[in-house]
Amino acid sequence: MGKIKETIEEIRALDEAAMESARARQDTLTKPQHSLGILEDISVKIAGITGDFIPELNDKVIITMAGDHGITEEGVSAYPKEVTPQMVYNFLRGGAGINVLARHVGARVVVVDMGVATDIEVKRASANFINKKIAYGTANMTKGPAMRYEEAVRSIEAGIDVLEHEIEKGADIVGVGDMGIGNTTASSAIVAFITGEPVELVTGRGTGLDDEGLEVKIKTIKSALEVNNPDREDAIDILAKVGGFEIGGMAGVMLAASAHRIPVVIDGFISGAAALIAYELNPKIRDYLIASHLSVESGHRAVLEHLGMEPLFNLNMRLGEGTGAALGISLVDASCKILREMATFEEAGVSEKE
Amino acid sequence: MGKIKETIEEIRALDEAAMESARARQDTLTKPQHSLGILEDISVKIAGITGDFIPELNDKVIITMAGDHGITEEGVSAYPKEVTPQMVYNFLRGGAGINVLARHVGARVVVVDMGVATDIEVKRASANFINKKIAYGTANMTKGPAMRYEEAVRSIEAGIDVLEHEIEKGADIVGVGDMGIGNTTASSAIVAFITGEPVELVTGRGTGLDDEGLEVKIKTIKSALEVNNPDREDAIDILAKVGGFEIGGMAGVMLAASAHRIPVVIDGFISGAAALIAYELNPKIRDYLIASHLSVESGHRAVLEHLGMEPLFNLNMRLGEGTGAALGISLVDASCKILREMATFEEAGVSEKE
Repeated sequence: MGKIKETIEEIRALDEAAMESARARQDTLTKPQHSLGILEDISVKIAGITGDFIPELNDKVIITMAGDHGITEEGVSAYPKEVTPQMVYNFLRGGAGINVLARHVGARVVVVDMGVATDIEVKRASANFINKKIAYGTANMTKGPAMRYEEAVRSIEAGIDVLEHEIEKGADIVGVGDMGIGNTTASSAIVAFITGEPVELVTGRGTGLDDEGLEVKIKTIKSALEVNNPDREDAIDILAKVGGFEIGGMAGVMLAASAHRIPVVIDGFISGAAALIAYELNPKIRDYLIASHLSVESGHRAVLEHLGMEPLFNLNMRLGEGTGAALGISLVDASCKILREMATFEEAGVSEKE
Repeated sequence: MGKIKETIEEIRALDEAAMESARARQDTLTKPQHSLGILEDISVKIAGITGDFIPELNDKVIITMAGDHGITEEGVSAYPKEVTPQMVYNFLRGGAGINVLARHVGARVVVVDMGVATDIEVKRASANFINKKIAYGTANMTKGPAMRYEEAVRSIEAGIDVLEHEIEKGADIVGVGDMGIGNTTASSAIVAFITGEPVELVTGRGTGLDDEGLEVKIKTIKSALEVNNPDREDAIDILAKVGGFEIGGMAGVMLAASAHRIPVVIDGFISGAAALIAYELNPKIRDYLIASHLSVESGHRAVLEHLGMEPLFNLNMRLGEGTGAALGISLVDASCKILREMATFEEAGVSEKE
């Protein structure tokens, strides 16, 4: 708990002076003022986050955290839970959606086992795999808490460790993503409980449930919330009762990134649920977050509304893994390049507005 | 006129078989079906355009066409017309927004002088500059047609030439962009006339007009349409009466790209007006277009609605130059990489939906 407290206390406000300088520079570049719209706004936010008024992003990292969920035994997912480790191996071989999109945007992928139900066997020490397994999947949360309180603490601490390790390696922007069969169920429970929205409204089809499956999922979530009765004043209790190890890990990444002034691009619904946990621990993290896309998964809008954030784009995606975050990182990178590389009116000898 | 007719007649329907194969392949990749949403749809469209069910984009080109507008003497722009050639030089030196974003997405920029009011002096033969100047700017369209009918034909033909030249050099996807002080005025005239929307609704502030300037602009457009009375059945007459050389050029690029089965990513309002001209000449071009973003410039929505197209994103941009198209090309490229590079369930040994 000490590490979480320390990290939370280190989070400062954005650097207003850097933001002002960045905004002033945007207005000298050869384009009508604010004609690059949200790209300009992002560059200013990144200046505020990093404290550098012409920020440069050299090492883009997607951290994809995997964990299993005991709740799958209630039949809440269209895919079997074996898919979690199978997809982790797919990530490590470079064949998944996140690998393709990360390569496309020039980011590296770091895969973290936060709590997959089987051991992930990696032949050689792999630079892109980190084992932070808290346990072999969460427990079935309709029968008690998903994890012990102490495990929830450790999952967040593990996320802090992972991000600090990546910063040592050079990371200057991070995207977070998830893999875990059953994790939209845990996320919907968290989102319903924290935002106060009805379970029905924030529960979607995940990887592809039919109507009957969706009914089961909604009932399961309601039952899990009733059985566990989380403490609204304690985000770690919420995470322990109805969360997941990868969700705790992502919350830890967000806290650590905020403490170290590194922008965090969040993905869809699951990383949104993690953002709610982190936000409960310290609302200042919001300043360090960039919402990439609006997911198809119902409930994601409630997350962003609760955080008061607008997504950058909506491409009807719902894959997770960090795929939306990867595309979002590319836009953030573009925004910083605009600020850094465009000629000013003076440099280019272009006449200004009459 | 022969070249335009020939090009128009060459435009075929999309390749349905390639689209079916691409869709089938998307469904075998290691993700829930259609979980990458619009990215999947784009890849299928590119398969239909190219006839290749696993298309690959190796040479991405942004064609930025520049032209001046006699209408600027009516005070319809916030910037002086000298900015058109000044920005062309900025493009050639690599300091403009389009240069930064094209580099970011791995595209090259080709700048075309379609009708700048001064000579563009390029010291050495430049691979990224093409002189297709039809005239030294259009005439003031409140006093007669913006250009002669024959010049309108030549501007479209020049666009066809430019695209065919780039295809010879290897281009397999093209984005179109514009530069021309005064060209939102010409574009609003075209859009109002073709869509039938009121001038007020499709006229915006361009590079940054104040309320008074906007009033003048609206009156000017109404007067130009009244003075010239374009022929609704003849798109080339519309272009001649109230268009611009760069608008004709972009329409030519779109026609030629469609004929040669090359995807064209359109930018904002000006390239949208060009798309309307091309669409009037042959509505099949729509199948070859991808709308990148929704521009802040009012009237752009009317363009996309008339074409029945949805933009990929909305970042409150209104710079032109092809900046939105560049970001759009990156998404198209990502979509094709998904189709090409992702592992199938079988290859990755991942279990399918239960």
